[in-house]
Amino acid sequence: MVKPSATYAEKLKSLRARMQSCGLDAYIVPRADEFQGEFVAPYAERLKWLTGFTGSGGIALIFKDKALALTDGRYLIQIKDQVEAALYETGEYIKKTTASWLAENITVGDTIGYDPMLHTPRQIEDLQKACDKKQAILKSLEGNLIDQIWDNQPLRPQGKVRAFPEHIAGCSAAHKIEKIVETIRHKKAQAFIFTLPDSIAWILNVRGSDLEYTPSVLSTMIINHRGDVRWFVDLSKITDTIRQALPESVSTYAPDDIGLQFMALAQASHESNRPVLIDERYTPIHIKNMLIERGGIIKNCTDPSIKPKAQKTDDEMNAIRQAHIQDGVALVKFLKWLEEEGIGRNEIEVSEKLYVYRAENNAFRGNSFPTIAGFGSNGAIIHYRATKKTAKTLESGNLLLVDSGAQYASNDIFGTTDITRTIAIGEPTQEMRENFTRVLKGHINVAQAKFPKGTIGTQIDALARKPLWDAGLDYAHGTGHGVGCYLAVHEEAASISPKGAQPFLPGMLISNEPGYYKEGEYGIRIENLIVVKEQKGMQSFETISFAPIDFNLIDTLMLETKELEWLNAYHQNVYKKLSPLLSKTHQRWLADKTIQL
Amino acid sequence: MVKPSATYAEKLKSLRARMQSCGLDAYIVPRADEFQGEFVAPYAERLKWLTGFTGSGGIALIFKDKALALTDGRYLIQIKDQVEAALYETGEYIKKTTASWLAENITVGDTIGYDPMLHTPRQIEDLQKACDKKQAILKSLEGNLIDQIWDNQPLRPQGKVRAFPEHIAGCSAAHKIEKIVETIRHKKAQAFIFTLPDSIAWILNVRGSDLEYTPSVLSTMIINHRGDVRWFVDLSKITDTIRQALPESVSTYAPDDIGLQFMALAQASHESNRPVLIDERYTPIHIKNMLIERGGIIKNCTDPSIKPKAQKTDDEMNAIRQAHIQDGVALVKFLKWLEEEGIGRNEIEVSEKLYVYRAENNAFRGNSFPTIAGFGSNGAIIHYRATKKTAKTLESGNLLLVDSGAQYASNDIFGTTDITRTIAIGEPTQEMRENFTRVLKGHINVAQAKFPKGTIGTQIDALARKPLWDAGLDYAHGTGHGVGCYLAVHEEAASISPKGAQPFLPGMLISNEPGYYKEGEYGIRIENLIVVKEQKGMQSFETISFAPIDFNLIDTLMLETKELEWLNAYHQNVYKKLSPLLSKTHQRWLADKTIQL
Repeated sequence: MVKPSATYAEKLKSLRARMQSCGLDAYIVPRADEFQGEFVAPYAERLKWLTGFTGSGGIALIFKDKALALTDGRYLIQIKDQVEAALYETGEYIKKTTASWLAENITVGDTIGYDPMLHTPRQIEDLQKACDKKQAILKSLEGNLIDQIWDNQPLRPQGKVRAFPEHIAGCSAAHKIEKIVETIRHKKAQAFIFTLPDSIAWILNVRGSDLEYTPSVLSTMIINHRGDVRWFVDLSKITDTIRQALPESVSTYAPDDIGLQFMALAQASHESNRPVLIDERYTPIHIKNMLIERGGIIKNCTDPSIKPKAQKTDDEMNAIRQAHIQDGVALVKFLKWLEEEGIGRNEIEVSEKLYVYRAENNAFRGNSFPTIAGFGSNGAIIHYRATKKTAKTLESGNLLLVDSGAQYASNDIFGTTDITRTIAIGEPTQEMRENFTRVLKGHINVAQAKFPKGTIGTQIDALARKPLWDAGLDYAHGTGHGVGCYLAVHEEAASISPKGAQPFLPGMLISNEPGYYKEGEYGIRIENLIVVKEQKGMQSFETISFAPIDFNLIDTLMLETKELEWLNAYHQNVYKKLSPLLSKTHQRWLADKTIQL
Repeated sequence: MVKPSATYAEKLKSLRARMQSCGLDAYIVPRADEFQGEFVAPYAERLKWLTGFTGSGGIALIFKDKALALTDGRYLIQIKDQVEAALYETGEYIKKTTASWLAENITVGDTIGYDPMLHTPRQIEDLQKACDKKQAILKSLEGNLIDQIWDNQPLRPQGKVRAFPEHIAGCSAAHKIEKIVETIRHKKAQAFIFTLPDSIAWILNVRGSDLEYTPSVLSTMIINHRGDVRWFVDLSKITDTIRQALPESVSTYAPDDIGLQFMALAQASHESNRPVLIDERYTPIHIKNMLIERGGIIKNCTDPSIKPKAQKTDDEMNAIRQAHIQDGVALVKFLKWLEEEGIGRNEIEVSEKLYVYRAENNAFRGNSFPTIAGFGSNGAIIHYRATKKTAKTLESGNLLLVDSGAQYASNDIFGTTDITRTIAIGEPTQEMRENFTRVLKGHINVAQAKFPKGTIGTQIDALARKPLWDAGLDYAHGTGHGVGCYLAVHEEAASISPKGAQPFLPGMLISNEPGYYKEGEYGIRIENLIVVKEQKGMQSFETISFAPIDFNLIDTLMLETKELEWLNAYHQNVYKKLSPLLSKTHQRWLADKTIQL
């Protein structure tokens, strides 16, 4: 065990000692837990504990006399900043894959260890190829080496499971299970193994508090073709009320029972000759191996809850709309404060203030992701997160980009928000105005779009970019991602991006967030959430986020009549929805920020 | 043998007799030749000979006491019209696949025969599954049963091969071969087998006259990893001049030598353990089987000439621009004639007149596809081709849609054109004007688009549709397809459509053809060819088709300033490019049709 006060050098030394006693020449430490989610609980922050790197994507490759800390382009500057150069060489793993990095640093006969709970079959396949090329051995280890040396490692989260009201879900857990069983039967399969915590929460109509930003329950679940549901979850999280609310077909098991149950499942698959379905993008290879070793047949299949989860029910949408109105109220308070007292505050203070305003609401359950508050050149870093070292102080003559979101859950208010506003601090330049207006035109193009059933995100993506393209500009991220209902802020099925091949379906909740980033100078992004509506074979979006868009940054001469009409109607709506919940002072302020142009 | 005057009933009876003597319960007759191209030579029109159906896509499934004639949605009306209902049940094979149709009509133990030269591995895979399901036997037959009963079957085309000038191609055959050899080596393969005639013509810088609409040479070619090229082609087509112009590495072989050469290739692959690459979408399964039976290793790979062929060289583009100017001259003569003498003519006369005007040009080598001239409700049939029975006569108060193209080859004029104009005959309705203007706005949106490198066709597709979408309208075809250089009018790499996932590359020649079709009333399409240009990381299109767009159909109030500017600049360019080649009368007429609005 390494003392809690150990230096990174001591931690690395200790890990290498463990590696040696296990006969390893290398060990892999990914930033991942068993659930392959975007956010991990503190116990799973092994990469951070070992290296000091806090980014949401990364991996360390530890060799006997060398160590690599890798991440993607978003975090390259940050990783260099956070890890000790004397201990780690840093690099990026998109252009050159982790497998290539590994291949370059091993030699014939090396043994490379990994924890099979933290890697998917897809990931291991790539690493295996790299090892094969070098005639090295990739070895799956029981237990995690970091856990063995991490003194005072945080416990696994123990948050209680809460019911997600059926009248808000608009669909019973029993009915959702029934639909999934239909899919399993249609595929002539034995069962599907769910390992995505937000899928499980959605199916069972429950929510948890295991993670800071996503109210899912870290757990695993099997649904078989007969409709039996086995849910592996820390039993202390399940109250009697929850147990009674679950459909009769659901049995709860302690996570320790997984081994036995999977053995039975593998045997059933073997005997019936029906495959067990897993989503290889998200399932630990440990689970796949366990089943195969016991004679189970495995088949890759997209998690069948992903698509229905993306299509919000009318009841969910009503609760989500309420959550967005509550969120708009916090935004208005924040924007007024920013206008009056922003100059002189730093980015961290700005984020904290926004949190405080949101927390005034009884239904607020926390942020849905770490707030991005980037001033000036920090705003141009797309996935920026302020640290004490980087936080800039607001001063006149530049832009502040604030991308944030929250979780709400109470009475008829349920939902996950995600909203970005860019605000001029002091007087912006004409160039800033023009670029902001281009981004706004793109945002409006999406918000106003009307298109036939069957249209895909890639098509709509171009509408958002066109005003920027016309000026020779673009942005290096997608235009929109799916959003959960009091669940994950990033859901996969719905998308507006060059890669969004899924046709839009009614009820899909998506972000609309074009941007423009001038490196070293400023960043612009305007984001509202939109929901897909369908009428007579044509589809369109309803915008459900409400907060004023900064007039100081709009060059109205660049707007076409229809665009100006949208802006006026939107601002009118913002005032109508939010003003009943605001104080007189805030009403006056908002009236001024939403006047008709 | 069946007499040339035989009825369709007699032909069918004769085929069934052959089937019986071969022990078959069913036989498959696709509309395909050995090259899987869009157009086939008369000898390969077996489906037409057997059933009377003339569409460019279809298949017949002949059973002992039943026969099915299947096609896609485009030709459903036509097929019902052309085949005898007493002999054939008709159906469509997109929603319900040919394999499903087959499965439904066979029983346990049936034997189904097919000609392995006319089917790709992909197609047979599907049919095999259908047969497996029914425990039936899918049997590859040597020789084609239709050929055995078709008296006076046309000979295989014997058109001479001509050189495609290297100064027009802008790249020598030797260099193209070198690039392909690099790909083969990069893939650690033994060889690639080319079966697409237009790929072979492009690589060797030759053109042929085997097909009515595409100047390719029906032939097969192997390029191996050492750079040896074996071209299997009717040797009587190759003059001495051609033989001398071919790179030294190219040896010509009679098609009968394929068997021996493939045996050697299979053995070489077997010994070297290097795969032979084929594009399974276009290669007869016969070739694949031949190689596998002789121990060759087969690997599927996209034809490596498809992408470079799509990117026209500067020299090709210069020749193509000239061809489009010549084509524009014919269009102007045609449009003037149509205005003055169109009423009272029928669709066939209209197509013939356009052909005559094109044929006045010495460089004209024929149409690049069958002209679509659809008046009124016929214009709403997207792939319409007038027959004596369907041809409408032009009368006042409706629209004529004319989609046509030509092949040009002479001196510095080389190219394939494809252009659509929609012309008001008499006075159009306001609704027609509005819909035409929407289509025009979409066309202009594409023509004016500016976008970053890496943008894909699916994104640009949305720009073409947006003005229609805004009005709740759409069209059921892609916006643009790739076009060859004095070669196939449909090339695959470049595309603007919901499925166009290939990023644009400089030199790609593509059609820009949004439309709108009001079933039973009229059709609208505006098509020019455009070429991808690149400057400082941004891409845009240059329009290279020149013919006036009908003012009578434009509601200028619906056009934005930038759109009107495009229209004026385009018409100015039309006049500038074409007038030097026109008579005074035609100049005056064109000046009037291109006045600035």
